[in-house]
Amino acid sequence: MTEPTADHATVRRHADRGSYDREVIDAILDEAPFCHVAFVHDGRPVVIPTIHVRVGDSVILHGSPASRMLRTLEQGPEVSIAVTLLDGLVLARSVFNHSMNYRSVVLFGRAGVIEDPGRKLEAMRVFTEKILPGRWDDARRPSRNEFKGTLMLSVPIHAVSAKVRAGPPVDDEEDRDLDVWAGVIPIEMVRGEPVPDPSLRAGIEIPDYLAE
Amino acid sequence: MTEPTADHATVRRHADRGSYDREVIDAILDEAPFCHVAFVHDGRPVVIPTIHVRVGDSVILHGSPASRMLRTLEQGPEVSIAVTLLDGLVLARSVFNHSMNYRSVVLFGRAGVIEDPGRKLEAMRVFTEKILPGRWDDARRPSRNEFKGTLMLSVPIHAVSAKVRAGPPVDDEEDRDLDVWAGVIPIEMVRGEPVPDPSLRAGIEIPDYLAE
Repeated sequence: MTEPTADHATVRRHADRGSYDREVIDAILDEAPFCHVAFVHDGRPVVIPTIHVRVGDSVILHGSPASRMLRTLEQGPEVSIAVTLLDGLVLARSVFNHSMNYRSVVLFGRAGVIEDPGRKLEAMRVFTEKILPGRWDDARRPSRNEFKGTLMLSVPIHAVSAKVRAGPPVDDEEDRDLDVWAGVIPIEMVRGEPVPDPSLRAGIEIPDYLAE
Repeated sequence: MTEPTADHATVRRHADRGSYDREVIDAILDEAPFCHVAFVHDGRPVVIPTIHVRVGDSVILHGSPASRMLRTLEQGPEVSIAVTLLDGLVLARSVFNHSMNYRSVVLFGRAGVIEDPGRKLEAMRVFTEKILPGRWDDARRPSRNEFKGTLMLSVPIHAVSAKVRAGPPVDDEEDRDLDVWAGVIPIEMVRGEPVPDPSLRAGIEIPDYLAE
């Protein structure tokens, strides 16, 4: 898919940065640790951060059935979901051309409740493995009550676009000779040293899948 | 300010994580490199990532007057703005209690155009200094056309809340003795080595404010 599938999901500003390629879109959705979800509540736009996963052709959200966001979304209104990864600060010679390097995805659609227990359990597995691969096989699996007490919503990846800025600053031709340093400061999200729970039972070592 | 100022800006889920303290809110807004803005366009919620700054009691957005988002917002409809900082992955003994440590702010309001040239220039300075302190005094300042060609919108920080999760996992009492490692993996956004623009003129050294 390399063409927009919906008018409202077409990148307008800097259209050259837009992409409709599912490989590009899926990679961004998978790397982003969380998303921002926009919906209309009491006639007012609301945006809320939450954790998401992608399973096949869907973005999945989950949480307590008491969540205002999930209670609204399960009614099936239009929703918009964005993820953004910051890759760098772009220092141009002119203030005006300063920018950021980023990879983002904006998705439009309507959520449906995942009722099928198999799909729901699989989504739980993907959520857990997204936090840390290897975790699903180690942590205690959901009980019957926990399983019931999790609302799982799925939004199809259809009306969607990615937007990517990469590379050096783009200065005006007449600024090229200015005596100003220009370039990119890369930004990366890194994991630090694991901090054990203060109440961790003695003798439990850091597992291999975490030590790596 | 330690109480909610608006019903729709009151934290409901995990209300104990909510804060209405402007010091907490301002620190999160200032640290977050970008925000997500939600608005209604053609009857549909839209969420878009963009750069923001805080100046005093306002969050400021900027961009081209041709931007669909800014053209919509300058009409003064309701808008919601969220910023989120990821601080850690929270590994509980049970899958169900896995979580993330984060600091987020959600703001509701209506945008107004910044017409005053002095305020507008000051906002440009803050945007530039946010990317890299020291940059405003080094880079070429906006020309008259660039100044005119930047639309600057201000949303008052009034109907607003912060939400913060910090610290170790919270497991159920009966899970405490499980043979599962539990704790937090800290996450940090770090800056890498600056990458000079390939077309950088010879002899321009990395400036002090960047080398630090």
